[in-house]
Amino acid sequence: MTVEMIFVGTELLLGNIVNTNGQFLSEQCAAIGLPVYYQTVVGDNEERLSSVIETAFSRSDVVLLCGGLGPTEDDLTKEVCARTMGFRLAEHPEARAELDAFMGKMKLHITENNYKQAMAPEGAVYADQLTADELNGMAAGAAGDQGEAGGSKAGRSLLLRNPNGTAPGLVMEKNGKAAILLPGPPNEMKPMFLEQVKPYLVKKSGQVFLSAVVKICGVGESSVETRVLDLVDSQTNPTIATYAKTGEVHIRVTASGKTEEEAQKLIKPCVKELKKRFGDDVYTAKPEVSLEMAVVKLLNKYGLTMTTAESCTGGMVAARLVSVPGVSDVFSGGFVTYSNKAKRKFLEVSKTTLKKYTAVSTEVAKEMAIGGVFANDSDMCVSVTGLAGPDGATDEIPLGRVYIGCCLKGKTVVKEYNFSGSREKIRELAASAALDLARRCILEQCKGK
Amino acid sequence: MTVEMIFVGTELLLGNIVNTNGQFLSEQCAAIGLPVYYQTVVGDNEERLSSVIETAFSRSDVVLLCGGLGPTEDDLTKEVCARTMGFRLAEHPEARAELDAFMGKMKLHITENNYKQAMAPEGAVYADQLTADELNGMAAGAAGDQGEAGGSKAGRSLLLRNPNGTAPGLVMEKNGKAAILLPGPPNEMKPMFLEQVKPYLVKKSGQVFLSAVVKICGVGESSVETRVLDLVDSQTNPTIATYAKTGEVHIRVTASGKTEEEAQKLIKPCVKELKKRFGDDVYTAKPEVSLEMAVVKLLNKYGLTMTTAESCTGGMVAARLVSVPGVSDVFSGGFVTYSNKAKRKFLEVSKTTLKKYTAVSTEVAKEMAIGGVFANDSDMCVSVTGLAGPDGATDEIPLGRVYIGCCLKGKTVVKEYNFSGSREKIRELAASAALDLARRCILEQCKGK
Repeated sequence: MTVEMIFVGTELLLGNIVNTNGQFLSEQCAAIGLPVYYQTVVGDNEERLSSVIETAFSRSDVVLLCGGLGPTEDDLTKEVCARTMGFRLAEHPEARAELDAFMGKMKLHITENNYKQAMAPEGAVYADQLTADELNGMAAGAAGDQGEAGGSKAGRSLLLRNPNGTAPGLVMEKNGKAAILLPGPPNEMKPMFLEQVKPYLVKKSGQVFLSAVVKICGVGESSVETRVLDLVDSQTNPTIATYAKTGEVHIRVTASGKTEEEAQKLIKPCVKELKKRFGDDVYTAKPEVSLEMAVVKLLNKYGLTMTTAESCTGGMVAARLVSVPGVSDVFSGGFVTYSNKAKRKFLEVSKTTLKKYTAVSTEVAKEMAIGGVFANDSDMCVSVTGLAGPDGATDEIPLGRVYIGCCLKGKTVVKEYNFSGSREKIRELAASAALDLARRCILEQCKGK
Repeated sequence: MTVEMIFVGTELLLGNIVNTNGQFLSEQCAAIGLPVYYQTVVGDNEERLSSVIETAFSRSDVVLLCGGLGPTEDDLTKEVCARTMGFRLAEHPEARAELDAFMGKMKLHITENNYKQAMAPEGAVYADQLTADELNGMAAGAAGDQGEAGGSKAGRSLLLRNPNGTAPGLVMEKNGKAAILLPGPPNEMKPMFLEQVKPYLVKKSGQVFLSAVVKICGVGESSVETRVLDLVDSQTNPTIATYAKTGEVHIRVTASGKTEEEAQKLIKPCVKELKKRFGDDVYTAKPEVSLEMAVVKLLNKYGLTMTTAESCTGGMVAARLVSVPGVSDVFSGGFVTYSNKAKRKFLEVSKTTLKKYTAVSTEVAKEMAIGGVFANDSDMCVSVTGLAGPDGATDEIPLGRVYIGCCLKGKTVVKEYNFSGSREKIRELAASAALDLARRCILEQCKGK
């Protein structure tokens, strides 16, 4: 079963937004083992959209369409896709009621064109009103109870609920092909895909796919690749693939099986082997866990409180910690000390040290980390000072040189890093490295104690 | 002249990377007024790539191909495109010499497959070795001096230098159509496009396009749209289009003309009118200026220093300020005060106020802003406290409620906001609103004084 994706939106063609939906859906399909050979971006134009849909159905089994489900005249995806597949649209009473309820809840004024979003193929039912057996009966080619639609062969269609917006999703099946329509805003599309479309695709493909993601910090991509090459080459189930992320490398282990247990059994020894090979460089094997979550989890586990003291990252480390809900038990706050004055005032970095070694130095990183512990009365503090550029490089301090310190229970470690890239990139890499150093220090001092 | 884009790479289809090249090239083409109706992502597969190229040429004049120019067997773009267009490849001596020089400079070991990257259509010349007239002579349909290539009609081809990598770019022209091949790594592709491809496309299109982007904060998208509808409807040159960004709305004004001056003349009155309509809601009309840059510029202009005091944004406001190179003159540092304890300790927010009004309140935002000014001895401080969720909502304080304070020269303003979305979204919107409030306070108190 092959999947193809069509992203609808003039804003994509104009470069107004990055197609992050493309990455999300691609990664999701890869994770459940569905091959994707083509992705197309097309504007809100009837003729072009229609031709792109026809091309997609000529070469793929399932077509995911994302975007163009809004209430305006420009939004054409549903109308064009239904016409191309031979479905007739009619207002769906329950979809209309859902729309009214959503607009009421959000205290939004409803206009007549909003009801365009309550149109659905005749006979469409909400997917969650079907039993699992009925849903599976929707599989390719299954005869539906919808009768003739649009004068062409019978098909079936499903509505997908959208708790985060006004556009319901849609599945239209006919002649062994399926179109799946998703709203464009990521906060509506992602939960709809994960909760409703993904299980449907898994059922449809007849195979269960499971993924683990072994996430690694502090090791370069090529080094990771070399160290897993034998596993990559010798295995087909599970498959193993490496992905370079900012400051991290992820190894995705994907297994297929007839049941979840069968797939799980195949994954387990592989993840175990990877954890053995990379040891503490691995911070998680769970796809949903981020580096900052892993740090917060460790802080909670060992009952530690942490402070941040940031120069060139300017608050990025703190902001990543605060992105974790419930962080307040272990992170009460931090300092952004961009100038020397602030380093002295907030963190009591000594004037002499700043003068003698300059702000970008092991010594200052050390004093910042120690100062942070005292200033916020916490168990540990991670500090970052570096040269993110674009100006200021000298013979002694090249662009991208960053010192990261970590003070924990009286012991302070400082590491030197040399990053490359833009100012933004260097700062992002530094923030990741800071979180990673904090993680390693906790492990070193607390693990097994 | 229409442009179509093809992005080649299995890593895109697997969701390994986000297609940021897509956005970059789309925005660039939009800025020079070239219509893009289709973009396709396809893997490193000969048959599928070939069919995608043929489809593209059947409906567009210029096809930009990005990626797949590497030295490995998987990299097929050049080979497939040349075959599809009827060009024969041969080793290009100068390209080989360039490759040797680059590898030598980078101290990289050269292997035989590297020389695949020195292959080019027979008779190809480096674009920078042609005079402007010769380059223009490359325009659609012009007969070249290349003679018969691959047994098909004559065409011409150009090599584009790549100072940042080993894969040269390529232009292949034939029968009024052109393929432009670019390397996939953004740090190679972007300079090559900006310095070599963009001027070529501008010449080829015979028109100059210029854009201004009027960037607006504090006004919703639908409201902006309504207020510019008459301009959008009545104008074709310049064209006016609105884009919703996080916490901002951008209005892009694009004009075409025979010369840059002509285009500039068309843009000016339109930008002036937009600035008149939106007044201080406009923070810039320059595409390259971000909200944080605008704030830093104002701080510099009026000689002010600023501090940040952040709770739910946890350092995002500070991190955005630090993203601006040279910010140290006006921003020395800030505080992340996520807990009540930190609010009290760093900012001297009173215990009574916290108890009486809770942390998410006008009163606490006010005390945080005032406290920040004193704690960092600065001219102003912007503070953020709010409920980003997902938990903690009460009848009094709904999810997304944020108070933002700004203390400047003894005067403190606090505004209440009610954002919606995920924890991340609420925090991003709050950070933008905080920067915008700082901007407005500076304008109100300093403008014209």
